[in-house]
Amino acid sequence: MADGLRVALAGLGTVGAGVVRLLDANAELIARRAGQPIEVVAVSARDRARDRGVDLARVAWEDDATALAAREDVDVVVELVGGSDGPALVLTRAALAAGKGVVTANKAMIAHHGLELARQAEVAGVPLKFEAAVAGGVPVIKGLREGAAANRIGRVYGILNGTCNFILSKMEAPKEQGGGRDFAEVLGEAQALGYAEADPSFDIDGVDAAHKLAILASVAFGTRPAFGAVEAHGIRRVIAADIAEAAALGCRVRLVGVAEEADGRLFQRVHPHLVPLDHPLAHVTGSTNAVVAEGDFVGRLFFQGAGAGAGPTASAVVADLIDIARGEFGSAFAMPAVALAEARAADSGERRGRAFLRFAVEDKVGVLAEIAAAMRDAGVSIESLIQRGQAVDADAPETGGGGVLVTIVTHDGPERCVAAALERLRGSQSLVGQPLWMPILG
Amino acid sequence: MADGLRVALAGLGTVGAGVVRLLDANAELIARRAGQPIEVVAVSARDRARDRGVDLARVAWEDDATALAAREDVDVVVELVGGSDGPALVLTRAALAAGKGVVTANKAMIAHHGLELARQAEVAGVPLKFEAAVAGGVPVIKGLREGAAANRIGRVYGILNGTCNFILSKMEAPKEQGGGRDFAEVLGEAQALGYAEADPSFDIDGVDAAHKLAILASVAFGTRPAFGAVEAHGIRRVIAADIAEAAALGCRVRLVGVAEEADGRLFQRVHPHLVPLDHPLAHVTGSTNAVVAEGDFVGRLFFQGAGAGAGPTASAVVADLIDIARGEFGSAFAMPAVALAEARAADSGERRGRAFLRFAVEDKVGVLAEIAAAMRDAGVSIESLIQRGQAVDADAPETGGGGVLVTIVTHDGPERCVAAALERLRGSQSLVGQPLWMPILG
Repeated sequence: MADGLRVALAGLGTVGAGVVRLLDANAELIARRAGQPIEVVAVSARDRARDRGVDLARVAWEDDATALAAREDVDVVVELVGGSDGPALVLTRAALAAGKGVVTANKAMIAHHGLELARQAEVAGVPLKFEAAVAGGVPVIKGLREGAAANRIGRVYGILNGTCNFILSKMEAPKEQGGGRDFAEVLGEAQALGYAEADPSFDIDGVDAAHKLAILASVAFGTRPAFGAVEAHGIRRVIAADIAEAAALGCRVRLVGVAEEADGRLFQRVHPHLVPLDHPLAHVTGSTNAVVAEGDFVGRLFFQGAGAGAGPTASAVVADLIDIARGEFGSAFAMPAVALAEARAADSGERRGRAFLRFAVEDKVGVLAEIAAAMRDAGVSIESLIQRGQAVDADAPETGGGGVLVTIVTHDGPERCVAAALERLRGSQSLVGQPLWMPILG
Repeated sequence: MADGLRVALAGLGTVGAGVVRLLDANAELIARRAGQPIEVVAVSARDRARDRGVDLARVAWEDDATALAAREDVDVVVELVGGSDGPALVLTRAALAAGKGVVTANKAMIAHHGLELARQAEVAGVPLKFEAAVAGGVPVIKGLREGAAANRIGRVYGILNGTCNFILSKMEAPKEQGGGRDFAEVLGEAQALGYAEADPSFDIDGVDAAHKLAILASVAFGTRPAFGAVEAHGIRRVIAADIAEAAALGCRVRLVGVAEEADGRLFQRVHPHLVPLDHPLAHVTGSTNAVVAEGDFVGRLFFQGAGAGAGPTASAVVADLIDIARGEFGSAFAMPAVALAEARAADSGERRGRAFLRFAVEDKVGVLAEIAAAMRDAGVSIESLIQRGQAVDADAPETGGGGVLVTIVTHDGPERCVAAALERLRGSQSLVGQPLWMPILG
């Protein structure tokens, strides 16, 4: 057994404290599995005085996180500061430059700077690992980088944000279990329960899921992380009636990040989808995350587990440390950074599929004819159209306080036709507010 | 990029041919990911003349598989011969003795001889890998050995046999989709479709799942593989009425292998279970496999995918080869063989849980009283008891051609009480055939 892997920890929030607790609780087991003990020797955080419920008496303290990178007694720096730039990036660059491995849970930093950091790690010959950056405790980076490595991946997609899934699951619950409420109300509950941040926009606008998707796509397709090319749409505009109509269609609404490669072009989008009940993603409820990878030989692989929280995230961070202690690590993105291809973005208009459309309309003569004509003129084939008799909830801001809802399911067809139909209807006096379009996961 | 990993392949059945096809189809991609090409240089199989649809013109042929181990031009031997002993074991020992790594899909051999082979591999300093031995293409060995390595695993369990799951899924389908039939009839269909072997006993009696469970338990708990300590029960005795009663209880019947460690004792059992619909295993249908691991920090991890077939199994075999080519491998069972503990078998009678009991009984006075008294006298608390009015299908051999079915769900309690109740009823003139007991997955 070797002497031990010496770890410096930057950031002692929930996850950082969880890592300390995990390394302590399972120290003996981890040493046996890793072939050597893994020990925290130095930490840095903002407030030294704060009680985090972990014993740091024998651990060196640095007020400046970057100083961790310079310590002679450190082999690996665990970066849990967060933020795509700023101190996290400064520390990571400094650690790699000092020849130390880096383990991080920082999806924003990897999505934005992963290529540069992977290059730097390769030049230095040290590991850069980020299992905890995607889907929390679920070993999906490993699953793609190694488990599915023999496959050409056609598509990787999943539920990547626990906050949104918690909210959507709540909204779809039976009324007696608190369901049937609109987004804003359930968001408030999620915030009160700690499932959503005070400023929830990164989560509910799809940015957090987009960070994770960009990382997954890079590992799956051997392309450079291209966060800027991810279309990100969130769940703010999903109302209770959308979920009810989806249920009537045998579907649930889920925020799904989809990355797909075809003809050398990479499509990446985070968007609320209708997910049919016979798809495993429809059964992922609460703050759970799940990822599907479709390989040409393995078929559909499905990974599911806790996407956030101190314990699961610490589990992923320490799994990376164990890989490093075992000497079982290599290129961060499954192949050397120099071999990663520049991804050419796909034209989403060329994508085909079935879609769900919801309109809030004035209850007057000719409205349906106007919508139907726009669909026809844009070449959209309608599979079903439903107008319910009752006016929708006056509280839903989507409907301007009193329209009637019309929902359409289209046949399989190109997205650009649907976009053209919606463009034709823009500014129509018959519509109240913006229509909502959601792809149906196929 | 290194010179290439040179592979010898023993066994050219469905999976062996799949490995050749996969290494050919994705050669360039695999070389980029693995850091070097992976090339089949020699093969051995029974019938040289047979057309397997793959090009072996530039590959050396050995009539005797063991000769592959002696070849100077081979780095790794892939063993796809099968069987716990015999040629597969001879070849594996010879390859390790010759300082070559071994990749195998052979669950029986690893379950029976894994400890000895892991020791031999460690002494020789070469890899021994068997991802394909458990759950086909699903990277669950990797998920446990590496992804969940930071955790103390409390329980690992899953659907490990695709043949049984295919049959049970068929039996539970709606009548118009061929459901509602008894075991023997659906087995015949599964055989005709190639989902079950001509001699299906290894699959349907739970032996195949028991092999896989013994391997999973070893990796999860750091114990020596102990196949002899796995209780294996199959699905032969499950009748259509059991599945219907399970459905009425909000459950599906699944063959689940469960391994659990508590107080230093290891429990391992393969048995048909009632799985509540809110558990992800209930939604695993067809020949799919799925594994759940419960870790103290990560919580519940869920892995699902194709459990068999040429493509998925080849995917797992080649994933192991890529790990080897990358130099990312270590102890076969997550820690050195010498560190694996001797597992003390748990007393299954001490296990607690809810149970489902089905009796076929004579339709006469006093039968229910006799059963209820046996339960009471053995200390079994009854949650529900159902006797349907109609006589059961005269064709079901379970019921001797005409009994009435009584099903009981017990409250949570020790299994030994249920066993004692059944013992009291043994030989009763009121019962037709053997009662069926199934635990309810909790």
